[in-house]
Amino acid sequence: MDLKPTKPLSGFVELLPAQQRCFDACAGRMLNVLRTSGFSVLDLPAIERAEVLTDKDNWDEIETQMFLFQKGDTKMGLRYDGTVGLARYVAGHLNDLTFPFRAAQFSKRYRGERAQRGRYREFYQMDLDILGINSLSTNYDAEIVLVISRALDTACEFIGPACVHVGSRPFWDALFEYLELSPAQKKDVFVLIDKKDKMGDEDFAEGLRDAIGNARTEEKIKSVFTDGYAHFVGASEPLDAAIAELTGFMETLRAIGVERAELDLSITRGLAYYTGLVFEFKLIEHPELGTAAGGGRYADLAGKFSKTKIIGVGAAIGFSRIFWALLEGGKIDVSRFARPVTAVILVMGNDNVAYAMRVADEMRAAGISTATYLDTERKFKNQIEFADKIGAPFSVIIGDTEVGNNTVALKDMTSGSQREIAVEDLVKLLKK
Amino acid sequence: MDLKPTKPLSGFVELLPAQQRCFDACAGRMLNVLRTSGFSVLDLPAIERAEVLTDKDNWDEIETQMFLFQKGDTKMGLRYDGTVGLARYVAGHLNDLTFPFRAAQFSKRYRGERAQRGRYREFYQMDLDILGINSLSTNYDAEIVLVISRALDTACEFIGPACVHVGSRPFWDALFEYLELSPAQKKDVFVLIDKKDKMGDEDFAEGLRDAIGNARTEEKIKSVFTDGYAHFVGASEPLDAAIAELTGFMETLRAIGVERAELDLSITRGLAYYTGLVFEFKLIEHPELGTAAGGGRYADLAGKFSKTKIIGVGAAIGFSRIFWALLEGGKIDVSRFARPVTAVILVMGNDNVAYAMRVADEMRAAGISTATYLDTERKFKNQIEFADKIGAPFSVIIGDTEVGNNTVALKDMTSGSQREIAVEDLVKLLKK
Repeated sequence: MDLKPTKPLSGFVELLPAQQRCFDACAGRMLNVLRTSGFSVLDLPAIERAEVLTDKDNWDEIETQMFLFQKGDTKMGLRYDGTVGLARYVAGHLNDLTFPFRAAQFSKRYRGERAQRGRYREFYQMDLDILGINSLSTNYDAEIVLVISRALDTACEFIGPACVHVGSRPFWDALFEYLELSPAQKKDVFVLIDKKDKMGDEDFAEGLRDAIGNARTEEKIKSVFTDGYAHFVGASEPLDAAIAELTGFMETLRAIGVERAELDLSITRGLAYYTGLVFEFKLIEHPELGTAAGGGRYADLAGKFSKTKIIGVGAAIGFSRIFWALLEGGKIDVSRFARPVTAVILVMGNDNVAYAMRVADEMRAAGISTATYLDTERKFKNQIEFADKIGAPFSVIIGDTEVGNNTVALKDMTSGSQREIAVEDLVKLLKK
Repeated sequence: MDLKPTKPLSGFVELLPAQQRCFDACAGRMLNVLRTSGFSVLDLPAIERAEVLTDKDNWDEIETQMFLFQKGDTKMGLRYDGTVGLARYVAGHLNDLTFPFRAAQFSKRYRGERAQRGRYREFYQMDLDILGINSLSTNYDAEIVLVISRALDTACEFIGPACVHVGSRPFWDALFEYLELSPAQKKDVFVLIDKKDKMGDEDFAEGLRDAIGNARTEEKIKSVFTDGYAHFVGASEPLDAAIAELTGFMETLRAIGVERAELDLSITRGLAYYTGLVFEFKLIEHPELGTAAGGGRYADLAGKFSKTKIIGVGAAIGFSRIFWALLEGGKIDVSRFARPVTAVILVMGNDNVAYAMRVADEMRAAGISTATYLDTERKFKNQIEFADKIGAPFSVIIGDTEVGNNTVALKDMTSGSQREIAVEDLVKLLKK
């Protein structure tokens, strides 16, 4: 019989135990920051009705990007982000939740497209959103940026420091208005800005020429990427309002202790959806990884589910993409997570197994992580080899003598020293 | 425009924030027992190649039970249990892992079948397995039962105490041999035993008659469900061996401190797969929920992936099914998890927002869970209402006076008492 493949499907990641412990520790710290900041961590279904996932009807095209399937008459698919489910959930629980509602999610997302290098078909994102009914102060935008900063700070040991870039959708709206662009031109230019990083300056300039065909207007747009809003102060009331909101926001970030924040009007976060300030976090030491987290303000989260207007500010941290990429590049040191346990219990003689397992039970109850090696017919040499191989700092050796004395032999695996010790003292010592 | 449905698909569960906090706390405690017992928690892909999920070729039938889809030439689907992925993973990492290898998983599983009451199409299971190469002492069977007992103990406050029922596959094999059943009869009888609980005694007796047609043999089989192995002591060597293994195991369980263990030969855990001792945990106070956890020993985990023989003992805890059913029945009290935070910061006047957020940042850094209410234009009455509604034990009120004095006003939401306090003292007080 042919053996089946042992590798996961392309675009899917599975980690070795030590890598996984490091990943879990990082993610756990970040989630703890979210919880401590009052966010309720939700766990929503990974499968949604297709009509929830998309408003479009071009199934053939959508099917190339998503995992879709049909059960009975119902088309459904795997979620590709955390926002669709959140919108549905909040709209369905308006009376069960207290607003402003702080929601967090840390869950797997799926993309059905063909896997490419650095693109995953299954990955985790950590979402955080603050949602208000009918109104929501822009102060919450600063709160979201603060919480993400603190969350990334707790993972800094592994991924290095991050910097937040802040842009403004209203600035661009006001600028296009001021430059008297047509709706079609606005859209074209926005697509260009969104792709600018990948295009290079020349292609961008050419794209602008095609879209606008007026050198002065083109220059004004290009000036934003070199001089920011400098040429537009006082140009129009909406421009001044957008500039004031943005500069005020940067001051707030400084005042509340978000270091490493930059005003950066090239940040727009795609075409639709966002309606206010937008921001992206980048890793200072790993610019090649692009955006580590991104988000902004949206004026209407759940319009397709509810007549109640839900305003929000939120972001997604692309944690697993960043972590996996750094891990693959050998840039994350997981050696600290190599040891699954503090101690391994080795048993000489099958009659002593029950005693050994009672010792293990006591150690674990005291929080000392303990594995047992219970193939008692193996030679001592093989047993101690196991303890060494999994990297346990201590071996707890149990034979007839120890059972008779109600003790164990504790071996320090680093120094090699060994001594007999009462079980009670063992627990005290290793509990530290 | 018609509004889209806000309920999740049938068979999918989503919890309210307080329920979710309770679920996460329970699951977290249980996972902690597994980690402390030396199990490495793995996180494997939810999507596997179809050929990994099943050996069968009857796609039409399989498709009614699973979520399957095709991308390019590759048929794939969502996992329905934790074992298929574990077998693939371990076979692919024989040289990266140290054996006996302790693996745990806590992940979502999927069933594509039509949703029925009490049946979920997405649910969590917590798996634990100990895997050896070529050999693995049956002592590890006791270790698995011990660890599950301790894991369920930590959730006992919510789900009540559990009891483990232990059966033996070798006993039935030896009995069928002794009774000289044909292979076809063995299979038929095993199917009947597996369904016995759902059939009732009369249907079971009738089924036996159809399968065997020999009243004395039928009586002997039925006697197992009333008298256990009593009539078969000394009947044959394999029967005696199976009885000795089982009774020895029950003694070991008692000796290592697993209370509430019963020898129960009606436990067989289905048709294939298991080859040794098998066991099921049931909740004493909720017998209607059936099996809370079940598992046993298998002789060949990964035969379709590797020529190396991997022997294991493992189990799955059907944690979410149990938890959701008890929650739905109003039998889990989540009131202790109702409060998302210890304190809410209320801000009078938008100029004081930065100060307030710095206070929040300090409190969170000290581990005090803190939400901020930043709609500063709202009246004090509305702000304090928010603090009350989310159930925060304390409000931290900040206005011009407090900013001037470098203090806050701390309001105890239970007693209603309020006092001015330095930020440093606030942190000390609430950190407790």
